[in-house]
Amino acid sequence: MSTTTTTPTSTAWRAGSGDVSTETLETIDRWWRTANYLSVGQIYLLANPLLREPLTIEDVKPRLLGHWGTTPGLTFLYAHLNRAIAEREQSTIYVTGPGHGGPGLVASAYLDGTYSEVYPDITQDAEGVRRLFRQFSFPGGIPSHVAPETPGSIHEGGELGYALSHAYGAAFDNPDLLVAAVVGDGEAETGPLATSWHSNKFVNPAQDGVVLPILHLNGYKIANPTVLARISDDELVALMRGYGHEPHVFVAGFDDEPHVEVHRRFATMLDDVLDEISAIKARAAEGDLTRPMWPMIVFRTPKGWTGPDTIDGKKTTGSWRAHQVPLANARDTPEHLEVLGDWLASYKPEELFDEDGRVADDVRGLAPAGGLRMSDNPHANGGLLLKDLRLPDFRDYAVDVPVPGGSISEAPKVLGQWLTDVIRQNPDNFRIFGPDETASNRLQAVFETTDKQWNAQFEGPEVDEHLARAGRVMEMLSEHQCQGWLEGYLLTGRHGLFNCYEAFIHIIDSMFNQHAKWLKVTDEIPWRRPIASLNYLLSSHVWRQDHNGFSHQDPGFIDHVVNKKAEIVRVYLPPDANTLLSTYDHCLRSKQYVNVVVTGKQPAPNFLTMDQAVAHCTRGLGIWDWAGTEVEGEEPDVVLGCAGDVPTLEVLAAADILRREVPDLKVRVVNVVDLMRLQDEKEHPHGLSDKDFDTVFTPDKPVIFAYHGYPWLIHRLTYRRTGHANIHVRGYKEEGTTTTPFDMVMLNDLDRFHLVIDTIDRVPSLRTRYAGLRQRMVDARLEARQYTRTHGEDIPAVRDWVWPDAGDSGLAQDLDAAASTGGDNE
Amino acid sequence: MSTTTTTPTSTAWRAGSGDVSTETLETIDRWWRTANYLSVGQIYLLANPLLREPLTIEDVKPRLLGHWGTTPGLTFLYAHLNRAIAEREQSTIYVTGPGHGGPGLVASAYLDGTYSEVYPDITQDAEGVRRLFRQFSFPGGIPSHVAPETPGSIHEGGELGYALSHAYGAAFDNPDLLVAAVVGDGEAETGPLATSWHSNKFVNPAQDGVVLPILHLNGYKIANPTVLARISDDELVALMRGYGHEPHVFVAGFDDEPHVEVHRRFATMLDDVLDEISAIKARAAEGDLTRPMWPMIVFRTPKGWTGPDTIDGKKTTGSWRAHQVPLANARDTPEHLEVLGDWLASYKPEELFDEDGRVADDVRGLAPAGGLRMSDNPHANGGLLLKDLRLPDFRDYAVDVPVPGGSISEAPKVLGQWLTDVIRQNPDNFRIFGPDETASNRLQAVFETTDKQWNAQFEGPEVDEHLARAGRVMEMLSEHQCQGWLEGYLLTGRHGLFNCYEAFIHIIDSMFNQHAKWLKVTDEIPWRRPIASLNYLLSSHVWRQDHNGFSHQDPGFIDHVVNKKAEIVRVYLPPDANTLLSTYDHCLRSKQYVNVVVTGKQPAPNFLTMDQAVAHCTRGLGIWDWAGTEVEGEEPDVVLGCAGDVPTLEVLAAADILRREVPDLKVRVVNVVDLMRLQDEKEHPHGLSDKDFDTVFTPDKPVIFAYHGYPWLIHRLTYRRTGHANIHVRGYKEEGTTTTPFDMVMLNDLDRFHLVIDTIDRVPSLRTRYAGLRQRMVDARLEARQYTRTHGEDIPAVRDWVWPDAGDSGLAQDLDAAASTGGDNE
Repeated sequence: MSTTTTTPTSTAWRAGSGDVSTETLETIDRWWRTANYLSVGQIYLLANPLLREPLTIEDVKPRLLGHWGTTPGLTFLYAHLNRAIAEREQSTIYVTGPGHGGPGLVASAYLDGTYSEVYPDITQDAEGVRRLFRQFSFPGGIPSHVAPETPGSIHEGGELGYALSHAYGAAFDNPDLLVAAVVGDGEAETGPLATSWHSNKFVNPAQDGVVLPILHLNGYKIANPTVLARISDDELVALMRGYGHEPHVFVAGFDDEPHVEVHRRFATMLDDVLDEISAIKARAAEGDLTRPMWPMIVFRTPKGWTGPDTIDGKKTTGSWRAHQVPLANARDTPEHLEVLGDWLASYKPEELFDEDGRVADDVRGLAPAGGLRMSDNPHANGGLLLKDLRLPDFRDYAVDVPVPGGSISEAPKVLGQWLTDVIRQNPDNFRIFGPDETASNRLQAVFETTDKQWNAQFEGPEVDEHLARAGRVMEMLSEHQCQGWLEGYLLTGRHGLFNCYEAFIHIIDSMFNQHAKWLKVTDEIPWRRPIASLNYLLSSHVWRQDHNGFSHQDPGFIDHVVNKKAEIVRVYLPPDANTLLSTYDHCLRSKQYVNVVVTGKQPAPNFLTMDQAVAHCTRGLGIWDWAGTEVEGEEPDVVLGCAGDVPTLEVLAAADILRREVPDLKVRVVNVVDLMRLQDEKEHPHGLSDKDFDTVFTPDKPVIFAYHGYPWLIHRLTYRRTGHANIHVRGYKEEGTTTTPFDMVMLNDLDRFHLVIDTIDRVPSLRTRYAGLRQRMVDARLEARQYTRTHGEDIPAVRDWVWPDAGDSGLAQDLDAAASTGGDNE
Repeated sequence: MSTTTTTPTSTAWRAGSGDVSTETLETIDRWWRTANYLSVGQIYLLANPLLREPLTIEDVKPRLLGHWGTTPGLTFLYAHLNRAIAEREQSTIYVTGPGHGGPGLVASAYLDGTYSEVYPDITQDAEGVRRLFRQFSFPGGIPSHVAPETPGSIHEGGELGYALSHAYGAAFDNPDLLVAAVVGDGEAETGPLATSWHSNKFVNPAQDGVVLPILHLNGYKIANPTVLARISDDELVALMRGYGHEPHVFVAGFDDEPHVEVHRRFATMLDDVLDEISAIKARAAEGDLTRPMWPMIVFRTPKGWTGPDTIDGKKTTGSWRAHQVPLANARDTPEHLEVLGDWLASYKPEELFDEDGRVADDVRGLAPAGGLRMSDNPHANGGLLLKDLRLPDFRDYAVDVPVPGGSISEAPKVLGQWLTDVIRQNPDNFRIFGPDETASNRLQAVFETTDKQWNAQFEGPEVDEHLARAGRVMEMLSEHQCQGWLEGYLLTGRHGLFNCYEAFIHIIDSMFNQHAKWLKVTDEIPWRRPIASLNYLLSSHVWRQDHNGFSHQDPGFIDHVVNKKAEIVRVYLPPDANTLLSTYDHCLRSKQYVNVVVTGKQPAPNFLTMDQAVAHCTRGLGIWDWAGTEVEGEEPDVVLGCAGDVPTLEVLAAADILRREVPDLKVRVVNVVDLMRLQDEKEHPHGLSDKDFDTVFTPDKPVIFAYHGYPWLIHRLTYRRTGHANIHVRGYKEEGTTTTPFDMVMLNDLDRFHLVIDTIDRVPSLRTRYAGLRQRMVDARLEARQYTRTHGEDIPAVRDWVWPDAGDSGLAQDLDAAASTGGDNE
């Protein structure tokens, strides 16, 4: 696997021969028995891997961990897909929704040979089998779930719900790829999975690959039946049709049907399904891009199929008792040990392994060749296929900034112009995802060159703006779906971004966790190649919820993100349009990170020319000397720090007041665009050294820091700094009400007037001398508050304020006009 | 509303007369026109509320905020429900999934009269209408969404996805209540909503109320069509049947059908639906509890129905352009102002208001009486109906603790015994929710007295343990569903708890945000009465993921929670069984909080007798003098702090080592059960004063603090304390791999040996004198690590360690036996 770098030569969507010999079916059964034997062995055995000695207590692991219940179904499907893939030479990956079934997928990769290729220590002989067994869920070994360590996986078997979203993400822009996506009936109860079936309305049958959902109805969860296994067949079939699928129902187990006949029934059905897909693909190739009823499989089996029927007199196979380790105390009594021995022996290992403990040739021969093996398909190790984006020079998209504050932009709108050309230059490996907010978040320029991909019904151009069967923008009102699609797209070696309202990105907190963990672990797996970063563009942020109010206010995703490993996470708060451009160029070039970029979308002043922006973003933070009143060679009296666009504006306005009112005060203005620069270099790769931090923020002067989010985070990032006791942070305090923009800022004491008050209160030399100014600031706040309550909009003196150098440029009028356009819409 | 304290006298589930007169239909239409007029007025008008003067620019708000698109559909449904409720005297609440339609619900409550009752300033005359209009989404006024301020709502119109979960939560144990739940077709795309349809498999037709889902297909979101509006009718009907519903499809608008005929068609359908429900209820009353195909309504209307067809030549009504404020610049040109004027005039306000500006009597007369008004139904102000739980004395469930560490319990198992009696004593207003984990989280004792409520198919007692058509435990594998159900249950005045794996509670981060915001706002609304707290019981925590591994590790929900207002959130980390009992008793008595309780579920030593536990929980933190080696009258040399069960065990083991190895060291052991005690009293109501904090932790001695979660949080909570620079925190560092329990602790440097090393490193007098001990600790770690890698389990010296006072009690053997039962299962 580690050497495969191109997609397998595929004869995609070839129809099958329609004939599967009994001999092949018997081989499938032998493969299945081997995979199941290897799975049970992983869960239970430390030694005696091929049962060539009588089983003893010492052979059994002291702590039994893992999940048996879903495993035999997963291996059954894998066996049959192997046969079909080999026959059709169909590039296929396998998404294991029931990721608890780690032993089954590890066993399958071992039978494919891939496992020994990437882990040479796990040899194809008795000693290799012993090591395979021992390492499973053993200290220093491999996890019990399907994990980054499992060859062929793009899907962690931890949190449930994302199998189909990941599968569709993998299929987009991979027209020759089949994604077999097994959905557990437990997982099917989750919200994200329940809506992800609708992904089929977003697939282009010609330009995208095909997802084959396989609903594995084994009937039980940890301790309960599953909902979908306990509704009538009519309801289940209706549900699948309602989701836009043509279901093929397979029922196995429970009775005395010979194995080979069970396999024959399934092989025939699978051939039918794949031929149906071939026909759809053929129609699409001829230009019929309408949405078909894509086939899916309902795969009903007993839970823990082929395991012990009963243990201690209780029904085990075919019940929730088979979910995890059905024989939890295999070492406690001779009877239990015998159950385990009989169970293992039931697969007849003596027929499956040769003298050296190598799996029989015919069994191994079921696997397709090379990169057609699902465990070796390069799409499942996306970094192998990753191509850098062709990025237009972002400097060409710069907004003109004649003097600081001398022009006004909606920053994401400017970014959108650059993204438009990113799309033009990367027509098949870059997509934008968002829950119906791409235009709302001001990226609408992209619709000059692309559309929103959509394959449900169309109504006509009067209402269907920028909607087409192919397009680079993916919009569905489910943050889970957007995140899952993007993850699947990235994990298979492509690029993208997710634009979302800031408050609602918390919806995918847990998905972010899982992806960040995946990245951290893959960083440590040599054969896993780096993938493109997961890029967020969060707009409609907390400070402009004048429209939507308290329910839409929450800047805490940043706090959530910084709990993850420093190697993985980056947080950027560009203060204007040119810094946003420079930041995003960096993000789209990066790998293996999660980049969180927060930006407002309302008209706001630009402060930095492109050259200044590039330098500022390269430093990550810096002194804005044009904004301060420092004297070269002297220490400042106060540092006004800021991170985030609204806090930056307020800090500059406060600096303006101080410059006029306290002309002898030496003010330093520091803007932070890369939040992780605040942290210690020992804690984060982007962190500043203590020396550099002290140079910028001083070791002992008061620092008034205006921050976009919850103030705690700034303390958290700086608590080890020399001058930490002097850092006073203003940020969001959870005080929502219906507001105007400046009212919102005042409500949280982040406004210019309060920052001046903070300065007077904290610079000892000002306290008594400037009591008058302090009182005027208090009065200014009251007046501004009163104005909003009377007029419903911000007081003009605030709303039209511009940095003094820009005062003659007529910007105030522009701002005035912009202010009446209302808040962030949803 | 503020005086209603009992449920309305209801003639629940009476069949209708089957006859709606044309006169009534005309009144419905007049009511609808009035509600729509009042909605448009709220969005646009500052003055001239009844258009009795020509409309001028000054009459129009300078900033236009709000959502029109969904509003007329919501008011249409409200009007028709009013008619049916009055006729049937059917207690009904209205859950507004498309909560953006705030103006429509405010208008409806105004027409009901309720609005003026709870906000006497909004009178039933022209001046009241003016104030109603002005306050909407205006600084200091009311939010643009359906919000806590809206009478009759239990459902914030912020984040989408939870309408049906909330509705079912409200219906459980309210057998006479109808919950009309409007689901927007945008919302229907979210994951949580997509799975919440399956709630019908958890309803008992006799003992629970009825949810009537109304899928409002207005076809568009912000800038896109909706998926469900763009699939075929066949697919949509199949989807609803697949979800277990019998759909009734209503199509309105677009053509020249007279209004009264549109109303006639809908009224007839609504009567049919309600009669169908009556029949189901009647069958249930006779003992047929099988799950019926509950009716639901597909309500297809143009978006922005009755608004301007086109604006500036672009189709508006019936398109996404009607989503928000369709006429965003009503003040910019005379033509736009005329559009607004014509639109308002189209409702013929002169026919709807009397001379004083009071709504016409016949229109107001459509509302049902008193508490039958949906805006006044006490179920929608659940605190009115809240009854305290009858709680058995938790002291009676205490475990025996002869000496500290002298017994072993699985703490939640002990809690489960108490909860069993809580259920017995509160058979109809307390439920336990969880995603298939109630037994896994060791609360299985509750099944002695109750079952898991389930109304899908049954298979028989061999596999369906503790599954019944009625029961107090609600399990579906969707954290969203569990949280949404519980919220709905609490908001309607009942009690409950949500047990969940710690890592996966992040799935509902965003739902927690919304609920916490709801609580904060309702604290400030006098007519909203306090409701029971939302209680979490988080188990399978980060330190025992030896089974599930890295993907199941995340203690960050606590960090997420503490970003919310201090008045709302409480976090408890009980170190053993008796403290868990005492903590949970407190939680179930509390109101208006979110209580987060984290506890391990594996066998672990008990340290406190019940009397000690009660005292400890009352203090929230305390010095465990039996564990330390302080000398009365002298300062300690070091403070070992701990919060969380695993950290407490490691701190005690470290204290044991120090006591033996450094007998002259004065060690103070401090355990924290109420995490918010660490914060300053000015920041949190539970916070310690600086004086008290310094007394416990000392102002200047080294504090080694072993914490359950991310170490940052302890710094965040204590950064203003005198001795903060001396606090050294050990916690979770995101270093997952396959581990044994002690391996996991070592991996994060939280283990006893490392805590001793930390002590030596930080107590100046020890550094050189105890280099030998330090080296032995390093060696002990290496040996323990090596042992796990060889044997797959923890080294006995660690695994069997007990607090020395308990050394003779044979506990080591119990621990030994317990250790082999494996990790936390899922």
